[in-house]
Amino acid sequence: MKRTKIIDVLKSTEYGKEVCVKGWVRTHRSSKAVDFIALNDGSTINNVQIVVDPANVTVVGGTAPQSSVTVDGTAPQSTVTVDCAAAVPQFSLKDVTTGACICAVGTLVESQGAGQSSEIQATSIEIYGLCGNDYPMQKKGQSFEAMRKNAHMRLRTNTFGAVMRIRHNMAMAIHTYFHDHGFYYFHTPLITASDCEGAGNMFQVTTKNLYDLKKDEAGKIIYDDDFFGQQTSLTVSGQLEGELGATALGAIYTFGPTFRAENSNTPRHLAEFWMVEPEVAFLDQEELMDLEEDFIKFCVRWALDNCKDDLEFLNKMIDKTLIERLQSTVQSDFVRLTYTRGIEILQEAIKNGRKFEFPCNWGDDLASEHERYLVEEHFKKPVIMTDYPTAIKAFYMKQNSASGGSAVGSVGYQGCIAPGPTMQGTDVLFPQIGEIIGGSVREESYDKLMAEINRRQMETDKLWWYLDTRRWGSCPHAGFGLGFERLILFVTGMQNIRDVIPFPRTPKSADF
Amino acid sequence: MKRTKIIDVLKSTEYGKEVCVKGWVRTHRSSKAVDFIALNDGSTINNVQIVVDPANVTVVGGTAPQSSVTVDGTAPQSTVTVDCAAAVPQFSLKDVTTGACICAVGTLVESQGAGQSSEIQATSIEIYGLCGNDYPMQKKGQSFEAMRKNAHMRLRTNTFGAVMRIRHNMAMAIHTYFHDHGFYYFHTPLITASDCEGAGNMFQVTTKNLYDLKKDEAGKIIYDDDFFGQQTSLTVSGQLEGELGATALGAIYTFGPTFRAENSNTPRHLAEFWMVEPEVAFLDQEELMDLEEDFIKFCVRWALDNCKDDLEFLNKMIDKTLIERLQSTVQSDFVRLTYTRGIEILQEAIKNGRKFEFPCNWGDDLASEHERYLVEEHFKKPVIMTDYPTAIKAFYMKQNSASGGSAVGSVGYQGCIAPGPTMQGTDVLFPQIGEIIGGSVREESYDKLMAEINRRQMETDKLWWYLDTRRWGSCPHAGFGLGFERLILFVTGMQNIRDVIPFPRTPKSADF
Repeated sequence: MKRTKIIDVLKSTEYGKEVCVKGWVRTHRSSKAVDFIALNDGSTINNVQIVVDPANVTVVGGTAPQSSVTVDGTAPQSTVTVDCAAAVPQFSLKDVTTGACICAVGTLVESQGAGQSSEIQATSIEIYGLCGNDYPMQKKGQSFEAMRKNAHMRLRTNTFGAVMRIRHNMAMAIHTYFHDHGFYYFHTPLITASDCEGAGNMFQVTTKNLYDLKKDEAGKIIYDDDFFGQQTSLTVSGQLEGELGATALGAIYTFGPTFRAENSNTPRHLAEFWMVEPEVAFLDQEELMDLEEDFIKFCVRWALDNCKDDLEFLNKMIDKTLIERLQSTVQSDFVRLTYTRGIEILQEAIKNGRKFEFPCNWGDDLASEHERYLVEEHFKKPVIMTDYPTAIKAFYMKQNSASGGSAVGSVGYQGCIAPGPTMQGTDVLFPQIGEIIGGSVREESYDKLMAEINRRQMETDKLWWYLDTRRWGSCPHAGFGLGFERLILFVTGMQNIRDVIPFPRTPKSADF
Repeated sequence: MKRTKIIDVLKSTEYGKEVCVKGWVRTHRSSKAVDFIALNDGSTINNVQIVVDPANVTVVGGTAPQSSVTVDGTAPQSTVTVDCAAAVPQFSLKDVTTGACICAVGTLVESQGAGQSSEIQATSIEIYGLCGNDYPMQKKGQSFEAMRKNAHMRLRTNTFGAVMRIRHNMAMAIHTYFHDHGFYYFHTPLITASDCEGAGNMFQVTTKNLYDLKKDEAGKIIYDDDFFGQQTSLTVSGQLEGELGATALGAIYTFGPTFRAENSNTPRHLAEFWMVEPEVAFLDQEELMDLEEDFIKFCVRWALDNCKDDLEFLNKMIDKTLIERLQSTVQSDFVRLTYTRGIEILQEAIKNGRKFEFPCNWGDDLASEHERYLVEEHFKKPVIMTDYPTAIKAFYMKQNSASGGSAVGSVGYQGCIAPGPTMQGTDVLFPQIGEIIGGSVREESYDKLMAEINRRQMETDKLWWYLDTRRWGSCPHAGFGLGFERLILFVTGMQNIRDVIPFPRTPKSADF
């Protein structure tokens, strides 16, 4: 009999109809006359209730659960199994415990219980796989930290099911938004011989035999025998290659894994994470901010529209202000604020007695506490901060022109005069998260770009292809980067970035 | 003035309206009275024609093209530039050559030329970036091999624009198909401590200092000081982790980069390529084949429906049978054929005088010539081949039961009796491409899986998490893998896999 997904069974009101559901047992309660099995198949956070009269149900199949094994990598011992097609069932209803996988056939009936619409009066149950008492997700109230050790099984819990469904939906929102706006999904390479921003530690990628490293006379390792004939690493950003796409196809976005070999054991850092990086030709700073705001509101609205059940669960169990915060984000106009004006506001706050741990004078990189003050206390809504000092941002950002012949001052967004050189950055700061988007107009003048590269003493020999975009038909363009997991943190209310990706990669941890 | 994309300008019939377009010059012809500029902005393969009366157009802006530079990494010398906002233009219309980037404002008029609907009568032209004679995409009739050296600029050509737009569309088709069918996009890790199939060479990922490698007393390299505290590599497949997702969320798909460190310099191999790997709980072999066929037809239909202009261009320039082949794929019912029956057909052909280079006896892996014979000559349509010999396929595939108590024979799809043990594989073979999908039902019995693992003498200490899916609530499930670039080859008619990804990674090549 054809299986119906539980999400569809729960919506159906075709009472009296025979249905077949398949899934994993969340709970199994026995009362005097009947048993109740709550079954989940991942299609929704909601379980369907299977009502079973033990006297009137056929139970077939079953494979014995395997013996206990520790998670240190010891292979489990094989145990006795039974033939699933055996005529005489080896197992009975009482063996169908939490975590077991079954197929239940029965009649769809209107539920008597509160909060449920439909349930199933079972006529037969087929056991696909039983589940021993050592099933690690059986225990209620485990910490997220403990569950990370069983990341392969935590996916079967309510919280991680909800997070993963929302994660999928956010990816779909991203693809839909860009597709509908004429952007092309552009696959930039992960293995790279260049280093986007000169920033951060990179993972080396090699096929060299580490036991027999070829070296030159001075003892320097030679890479001509490595797979790519040169030293290569995992990319820290697809932006520079993305610009190649945008200056040919008009508007592109990347959405793929990105790597940082930072030894940071924090709730905000992963060694392998997903980035979204749109790049658009002919976009100016104002249009870039419009794009950032429209894009992120579209994603949040998508979650509110498409992930209602999962959000309600997370709002109840994880963060009671979640849905309210998402709604407020969609409804509010983001503040557009120059860095220079932001510093003024922070210094006024200090004058009025607000204490910060870190200094915030013009030219300083803002700390998380400063960003949160502006977003959560001063404006109480998302802020797009613009026109940062040149020195604290990347080399490729578009330089503002000097103010009134001044050698040091510059003119930024809406004519704001800054005391030093600034660039057309446009970062989006969010409550709780801080910087969720880092964007800028890109410097399209070859000479200005080269001057900045030289000022920073960057090596250009591996960037010739990037510089070519400014040599042949250079065009104004802009783009931004969004850390996908930061968006998922915001939309789920989860606190640790390791809990919004299936199998986190962090220092000393690459299991699964 | 707000820019209109060229794709929209060409559709518009609002003649007399003032429009602003921005893009790159494809050609610039001068006739007696007027100039014609064909402009492209990547939004479509079609150019808009800008008609310019040199006497009545304002030309402003312009940055001198940079001096010539070889692609060997020599940094170009900086040259004189002019201020884009200068009141007196430094450059004139004749400087607007192929590859230059401009903004043109003018009146939309009905085109007099054949094959074009609308064109623009220019009133002003702003030069964003000029383009010197050394622009590598200027030369007509370059080979694709030559263009690969300028992969950063080939994106601005008709062929690569078309291929990249189709590539985007195929990605969108994939996400749309799975989203609409209740699959969740599941991000499996790229850095891994395990090796999916024991197949193929892997790239090592490390942060170790290669000049000071820590070793134990026996001289073996120790990895406790590496980033992840163990030896890690780039994944060759996300399938095993995908099964963790499917056995929790019901149906997932991966779509991400995958790596093979094979030293293969062929038109079919990349070291870094994109894979699509759906995994579905409760799917049997027949349903898996339905999914494969329905999915790939959906993608091809999407291309026919959404990439008309680009396909027509490729059909004209690259492969005159392209559109016909795509239409035939969508319309035909795929043949479902056991491996055993396939071998019989091949041997009948040999008996009738057909010559093959490689043998094809039962138990042999089919060569490309065999697959192509079946698909292109015998059936003349796509074939789903099932029930391969156990020995030539991966360990995780579902084993068919023995036939009539035989120790060697087995019963496969539709009761087909095979002379040896077979597995429930379901590979899709396409004309020209060969294997485009590799799929199978997965073995859900812990004991059968372990027996196969032991038979192959595989190490299980890094696969404990995978085996756990068969220990706790094991369920029947199935899935397949599609090499994304092979799909793009099929849909574009391109011959070399290096020409359907923006920046190919191959032995000795990791530029851009």
